[in-house]
Amino acid sequence: MTEKLKIGVIGAGRIGKIHAENIARFIPQVKLEGIADIKLSAEQDSWAKGLGARIVSRDPGEILNDPHINAVVICSSTDTHADLTIKSAGAGKHIFCEKPIDLSVPKVKSALEAVRKAGVKLQIGFNRRFDHNFARIREYTQAGAIGGVHIVKITSRDPAPPPPEYVAVSGGIFIDMMIHDFDMARFQAGCGITEVYSSGACLVDPEIGKAGDVDTALVSLKFENGAIGVIDNSRKAVYGYDQRVEVFGSKGSAAAENDLPNTVKFSGEGGVTQEKPLYFFLERYKQAFIDEMISFAEAVARDKPVLVSGEDGLEDMYAALAAGVSLKEKRPVTIAEIRASY
Amino acid sequence: MTEKLKIGVIGAGRIGKIHAENIARFIPQVKLEGIADIKLSAEQDSWAKGLGARIVSRDPGEILNDPHINAVVICSSTDTHADLTIKSAGAGKHIFCEKPIDLSVPKVKSALEAVRKAGVKLQIGFNRRFDHNFARIREYTQAGAIGGVHIVKITSRDPAPPPPEYVAVSGGIFIDMMIHDFDMARFQAGCGITEVYSSGACLVDPEIGKAGDVDTALVSLKFENGAIGVIDNSRKAVYGYDQRVEVFGSKGSAAAENDLPNTVKFSGEGGVTQEKPLYFFLERYKQAFIDEMISFAEAVARDKPVLVSGEDGLEDMYAALAAGVSLKEKRPVTIAEIRASY
Amino acid sequence: MTEKLKIGVIGAGRIGKIHAENIARFIPQVKLEGIADIKLSAEQDSWAKGLGARIVSRDPGEILNDPHINAVVICSSTDTHADLTIKSAGAGKHIFCEKPIDLSVPKVKSALEAVRKAGVKLQIGFNRRFDHNFARIREYTQAGAIGGVHIVKITSRDPAPPPPEYVAVSGGIFIDMMIHDFDMARFQAGCGITEVYSSGACLVDPEIGKAGDVDTALVSLKFENGAIGVIDNSRKAVYGYDQRVEVFGSKGSAAAENDLPNTVKFSGEGGVTQEKPLYFFLERYKQAFIDEMISFAEAVARDKPVLVSGEDGLEDMYAALAAGVSLKEKRPVTIAEIRASY
Amino acid sequence: MTEKLKIGVIGAGRIGKIHAENIARFIPQVKLEGIADIKLSAEQDSWAKGLGARIVSRDPGEILNDPHINAVVICSSTDTHADLTIKSAGAGKHIFCEKPIDLSVPKVKSALEAVRKAGVKLQIGFNRRFDHNFARIREYTQAGAIGGVHIVKITSRDPAPPPPEYVAVSGGIFIDMMIHDFDMARFQAGCGITEVYSSGACLVDPEIGKAGDVDTALVSLKFENGAIGVIDNSRKAVYGYDQRVEVFGSKGSAAAENDLPNTVKFSGEGGVTQEKPLYFFLERYKQAFIDEMISFAEAVARDKPVLVSGEDGLEDMYAALAAGVSLKEKRPVTIAEIRASY
Repeated sequence: MTEKLKIGVIGAGRIGKIHAENIARFIPQVKLEGIADIKLSAEQDSWAKGLGARIVSRDPGEILNDPHINAVVICSSTDTHADLTIKSAGAGKHIFCEKPIDLSVPKVKSALEAVRKAGVKLQIGFNRRFDHNFARIREYTQAGAIGGVHIVKITSRDPAPPPPEYVAVSGGIFIDMMIHDFDMARFQAGCGITEVYSSGACLVDPEIGKAGDVDTALVSLKFENGAIGVIDNSRKAVYGYDQRVEVFGSKGSAAAENDLPNTVKFSGEGGVTQEKPLYFFLERYKQAFIDEMISFAEAVARDKPVLVSGEDGLEDMYAALAAGVSLKEKRPVTIAEIRASY
Repeated sequence: MTEKLKIGVIGAGRIGKIHAENIARFIPQVKLEGIADIKLSAEQDSWAKGLGARIVSRDPGEILNDPHINAVVICSSTDTHADLTIKSAGAGKHIFCEKPIDLSVPKVKSALEAVRKAGVKLQIGFNRRFDHNFARIREYTQAGAIGGVHIVKITSRDPAPPPPEYVAVSGGIFIDMMIHDFDMARFQAGCGITEVYSSGACLVDPEIGKAGDVDTALVSLKFENGAIGVIDNSRKAVYGYDQRVEVFGSKGSAAAENDLPNTVKFSGEGGVTQEKPLYFFLERYKQAFIDEMISFAEAVARDKPVLVSGEDGLEDMYAALAAGVSLKEKRPVTIAEIRASY
Repeated sequence: MTEKLKIGVIGAGRIGKIHAENIARFIPQVKLEGIADIKLSAEQDSWAKGLGARIVSRDPGEILNDPHINAVVICSSTDTHADLTIKSAGAGKHIFCEKPIDLSVPKVKSALEAVRKAGVKLQIGFNRRFDHNFARIREYTQAGAIGGVHIVKITSRDPAPPPPEYVAVSGGIFIDMMIHDFDMARFQAGCGITEVYSSGACLVDPEIGKAGDVDTALVSLKFENGAIGVIDNSRKAVYGYDQRVEVFGSKGSAAAENDLPNTVKFSGEGGVTQEKPLYFFLERYKQAFIDEMISFAEAVARDKPVLVSGEDGLEDMYAALAAGVSLKEKRPVTIAEIRASY
Repeated sequence: MTEKLKIGVIGAGRIGKIHAENIARFIPQVKLEGIADIKLSAEQDSWAKGLGARIVSRDPGEILNDPHINAVVICSSTDTHADLTIKSAGAGKHIFCEKPIDLSVPKVKSALEAVRKAGVKLQIGFNRRFDHNFARIREYTQAGAIGGVHIVKITSRDPAPPPPEYVAVSGGIFIDMMIHDFDMARFQAGCGITEVYSSGACLVDPEIGKAGDVDTALVSLKFENGAIGVIDNSRKAVYGYDQRVEVFGSKGSAAAENDLPNTVKFSGEGGVTQEKPLYFFLERYKQAFIDEMISFAEAVARDKPVLVSGEDGLEDMYAALAAGVSLKEKRPVTIAEIRASY
């Protein structure tokens, strides 16, 4: 048996907590060594110690400089991702970084360059690739059951919109929300996106429109392999978190419905009713968060390529940027055009 | 092409109307020659002529004695079935008779004897064998997909109870309602029932109890092939007509859910809702009523055995009588015991 | 009771047969008076007489000039629709015309003008509006259950591609196939389409590409009410006829799945299997063909607007033409641009 | 916050491991203090220490006598349950005991008596009451949505039969397997069982028959509240672990289907396929094992009644014994008869 990967987590917010608890409790292949957060509260301090972390600090440097730690999980605010990635690479640590690496393409490129030079692994937190439903669709495709891929359809709707002040700094719906779906689209098609065309509207909350964004969006896709596709996003589905994917091809179609909290159907005078989909992404992707970390640990342990690379993150960003240009300029936009502009 | 079967319908009540209209409009293999009902109203007269019937009469004899008619569909009141079957057989007509032939076993036996002597076909109106769902389950079994049959489960619940005055003359829930399910059980098991044990209760309407019957019943079954089974009946399922069957065996299980009027699911804040099952037996078994008549016409045209024989009707009746004895005497009752008592 | 609508059917091909049989057998509100087909075969002649048609002819004029006939159902080849519509209007007959009225916008406009002048009813054969599933979705929207409509998604895939020689004269996938979906999109959104953007590919059959068409297409839609939408078409879904619609709005989502021939699920070692969707449009829309004709008869009888007007047919055609321009010129195209060009 | 419940686990076999890991990792309200197994292997020793157990021993006495431990989880072999329950009660420990307490009614009664005298809590490991699906059905009933309960139906089939040598010492299918379903039946009906009637057959494996047992069984139930019900068991469902419950009443029906590993449907030429149900009870009831322990901890912490008491365990045993007598003597058997015999 190989030695356990020793991990330090930087950032103890919502997603950092999830990763730290998964590492400490649910993943035998890894060990939680430290947790750092520049605004660590007393409560977070106590929580971190309860998880058995050896280092609990407000200084990420304590993790970066610790000789026993060989991997860093970056969950701090987006504007620190690129810098921490570069520093972690410099310290020879393998890196799991939440998406996006940065909102600026040049900074992303710098971070990827640092990773390449250091020869460390970098995995981006596109957890949905590890979802039991979506991974199963990909298996059908890879097994040849679907034949050639013709159409990829992704439905991705949030249960409730973020506050407008968040929207204003989020980078917009394509960078903040649909980037997950661009990654899913590339994952399911098994190749890159070549062109996008965006439609968008502000139908959920006028404040989002005032913040310069749309809350309802639909993007047509063309893929390198000739397939076509579509993603639709809404910031608010009153019935919960709506996450569905369909891949249609020459031999058939594989489609994933939403996960429900239970299978009970109630038949009464008013009809037949079942539960709404799981409401929140933490429930819906609970196991996917664990599985992406296990995958990262295995990639490091066996020195294999990670399943979601820094280059994937960059490609998804190009798609999101192209979608933004398309919406603004009301024309189809190629990924090549965006890529060439940097 | 063989000549069309020329049919006279006796009885123009609810079920007679269905058969007459199906014969006149939906089944190219047959021709509606006559309709007789001893209480034929002016409205029924006009309806019958509108269907193109050559003979429209209050005298069933006009149908029985017509030389051009070669088959009779008996839909009159239950107490006339046996007599009309005997007369039809005597007149050399093939017979389609609604269930039951009679509430008295000796009269059923006399009718079957008359049919045998006359050498005509007799099919009993157990329409559910022709239902698209239940016939599909049987196909799975016959194709060997299910392997040996181990367990047969039948759910059969009406949307609303009949009036207590009807219950009083109906012969009771086993003869009136569950007899369809005994027939289905034998059809799905592919063999006879050997023993039943009944549980029953009056939970829907106390008036039904006063009329000496139960409105909720559950009967355990043993089959000749060693399989076991269960039927449950309720006189009232508020969500509509509940008709489901499952056959479980060594290689798998085939189960039919209810038919719904459409496939739409509405997802809202209160959950995900779809329609109730089709409410009434005329809607639910609409196509089965047509298909049983086509099957009857084909059995006559090709001189092949009918798919639901008079003997089937008798066997189903033994099972229903056994269930009644079991409920009354609180003990398992064999079919052999009932059969021997006549 | 009002007098029955007396109908003459022109064209006795596949769809003409369906309408004539529905009129003759399944719709009490109407009467089949005549059937004309310029290439009427002996077999068609015998079939038409068997349905009770008083006029059976190779000359459509016999229907147009018959004083007792007050409505014409036009099912002849597309290139004759406009002319027959104009003649029928001139003869004062109400008109049910199969889609499209013509492949040329000016000819469609002429036909509509003739109809307006004559003051007769004209209904176009967009049967899917009458489908039990899709009509139910519309009911949810109209009842306010969905709230404001945000996104309309239509999946529409044929079980097998037409022969390439048909494709060559069909007007292309948008006019020939997706026009049904443009009509469905407008029906479900409750308003017109303002702009389309098309993606297309030839992935099913290279011969279709040689004929100058695509066999896989995806069109983004914008609606007058601000909603957005998408339609995807494939000429070949190996699992059968795939016809699904989803309408998503501020209060919920209504989605229709495919109809299956039965509800049976087989659970075996290899998984849980159910039937493929109904394979062919005649099965899938069997009842819708009846219901659209009943609706037409009622519109005439009560002098109410038809549910699918000639103007609807023209609007759907503009959408289809816009989609074709979009595919060719690789840009979003407004309906206004197309409309202005005629 | 109350102090954490300090738990010692006795028995480190399959189910002991599950409980110990759940206690150590997934349930913040409890603390794993010790693990004892009279045959503790080196591997088990290392596993137990890895979970952070302070006491790891081959002597259960070390747990029973430890002053810091206030609750014991008994997962050792069935023949030791009663004795360990009595000793734990004597030591003043609260007790979570796997089912059954013993195969002998008098020994069960002695254990319950000891628990009563000691005034400690005793919860029996009927985990299925905590299942997300079955608990949801009960909620519907308790909320009044189902109205009066009329019929309870339970399907419970194992994916593969146990070895015949196990069957020989298991106490038979009713004590070993269906006892879970008797508990579920009482839980869903909200009252006791009054009478059972059993049908059984040996259809899966003749060796099970030679061991004196059946492998396929169906038991009719009558409940104290007048409802009726049925349980069917098979030792082998080739498609996996089949665990379904339906409760039908005056206002509607709530029914739970099986859990599937994912929601993907594949539509191909051969039909539409989805995954088999979760195969094994450890997967199917993974969360229920956690939730029953949380419930136990809360009952102790708040000094409330446990949700599955020792008396429940005794009642379920009476039902299982009655079912055995019924099968042997081919007659309905009341619970009162069995109860009176002890």
